[in-house]
Amino acid sequence: MTLNASCLFCRIIKGEIPSYKVFESSKVYAFLDINPLSEGHTLIIPKYHGAKVHEIPDEYLTDIIPAAKKIALALGATPDDTFQYNLLQNNGTLAHQVVQHVHFHVIPKPTETEGLGVGWPQKPTDFDALKKTHEELVKKIEAL
Amino acid sequence: MTLNASCLFCRIIKGEIPSYKVFESSKVYAFLDINPLSEGHTLIIPKYHGAKVHEIPDEYLTDIIPAAKKIALALGATPDDTFQYNLLQNNGTLAHQVVQHVHFHVIPKPTETEGLGVGWPQKPTDFDALKKTHEELVKKIEAL
Repeated sequence: MTLNASCLFCRIIKGEIPSYKVFESSKVYAFLDINPLSEGHTLIIPKYHGAKVHEIPDEYLTDIIPAAKKIALALGATPDDTFQYNLLQNNGTLAHQVVQHVHFHVIPKPTETEGLGVGWPQKPTDFDALKKTHEELVKKIEAL
Repeated sequence: MTLNASCLFCRIIKGEIPSYKVFESSKVYAFLDINPLSEGHTLIIPKYHGAKVHEIPDEYLTDIIPAAKKIALALGATPDDTFQYNLLQNNGTLAHQVVQHVHFHVIPKPTETEGLGVGWPQKPTDFDALKKTHEELVKKIEAL
């Protein structure tokens, strides 16, 4: 664990600040959001301090989605649409991030008005633009 | 790999339908969304057919967030706020899911109007409700 003494979420991991913990592994900690968008809204955080997901070592990231799956199942997820939910993680102020420690939201979506509101300003398909983006991105990924 | 012959995303994985692939591991496949919310909008899908994240075996889920990190870094992510983005995964029609094969969106957030629109109908803190949800959820997670 690499934690930060002044970070709210690091202090929750260390137990210095109480939380409604629902799950914990050696790499992640999950607890209820106290200002939920819907009942059962849970946060999953890596036990490594960093504001954005690209700052966290891979070994602290592999447990995140299996933990989200476990929480969804406990909240009542089945193969049909009875229990619906969104997984969301925000990086940056404009992208709606408030606390500066990476956190993944598991947000039940029981009704139109409860849970995450999703705005989808989709662009039309532009194959020339996609081709250009693709070429640049592939080069950068190969260079990582 | 456990794929479905009639699923659009399974056919993309198999190469039967072309895609702008940016990354691939033995467990995941990542490609550009052809109706992006912003330039660089990428989808990461497990190489295992299932509509919702809780239907996918853990071994196909561990690579997802490390892949998202790699894509964010290639798109220009640094420790500051220069490049902002959201990670989103939707389960169910009400939760804004369209294609019935699990997909994680990496969505750059360059401006207020481009990228994901986030609606946040936050509830006030209700400790009695949280305590009740917590007790139920912990029991269910222990029983999984």
